[in-house]
Amino acid sequence: MNIRLFPMLAISLIPSVAAAQDLTTIQNLNQKFSQAFNAGDFSTVAGHYADNAILLPPGSDIVKGRASIEKFWAAAGDQVSDLKLDAVDVKPLGANAAREVGTFSLKSKGPQPQAMDGKYVVIWEKAGSDWKLATDIWNMNK
Amino acid sequence: MNIRLFPMLAISLIPSVAAAQDLTTIQNLNQKFSQAFNAGDFSTVAGHYADNAILLPPGSDIVKGRASIEKFWAAAGDQVSDLKLDAVDVKPLGANAAREVGTFSLKSKGPQPQAMDGKYVVIWEKAGSDWKLATDIWNMNK
Repeated sequence: MNIRLFPMLAISLIPSVAAAQDLTTIQNLNQKFSQAFNAGDFSTVAGHYADNAILLPPGSDIVKGRASIEKFWAAAGDQVSDLKLDAVDVKPLGANAAREVGTFSLKSKGPQPQAMDGKYVVIWEKAGSDWKLATDIWNMNK
Repeated sequence: MNIRLFPMLAISLIPSVAAAQDLTTIQNLNQKFSQAFNAGDFSTVAGHYADNAILLPPGSDIVKGRASIEKFWAAAGDQVSDLKLDAVDVKPLGANAAREVGTFSLKSKGPQPQAMDGKYVVIWEKAGSDWKLATDIWNMNK
């Protein structure tokens, strides 16, 4: 395609190309997040969050800041395993943020592990060239 | 203040003024939302959402679109009342979106009403001059 002949078309394609790149980046980050969680590496899990990130877990008050978030996930790691994250939709919001909607599954630990699934909304924000989790909330489907 | 003498200062103030205006606008919308819900006016409740909004309720699959969202809230109105919403933090994301974190309380209906409280994250998007709910997720604290 000769974009000089279709300048408006070229411009109109930019958001969807950016969104597709963001989706791939975010899917890769999700995979690293769940791998780290399942390996018990909560420092790496917490490294996905912005310094001043806000976590809103079910059955808990709001958790603020990366250090508190690391403690939360370390405690969660005693209870559950086999975390899997699936991005359903990523939408850019301005130049440096994106809203992701996704689903997840995990298993309770113990003699009779239970499978559970739920859904989440996260806000990613760009810190330099890195995407960091700024807001993270989820709930269970049942 | 003579802003011609302090052009950088004037520019640096713009985001916080915009954020304060957004917070007031959003607090007013929250009040209208909860008033409509508590009055059983689910059409007005649904009117707060964008056409293609995404609702992620606990104990439910994802609900998509304003018509389905109205049905969801009408069913919820049979179970709960006395909804109160409190914005904790509103953060602009680009020129036409904002992320709100808030807390809520409500009461179950029935012979022995139970008070419950929780927290939410919503993404507001500007449609023309109106703010509409584009993504809405919440969970309970206990």
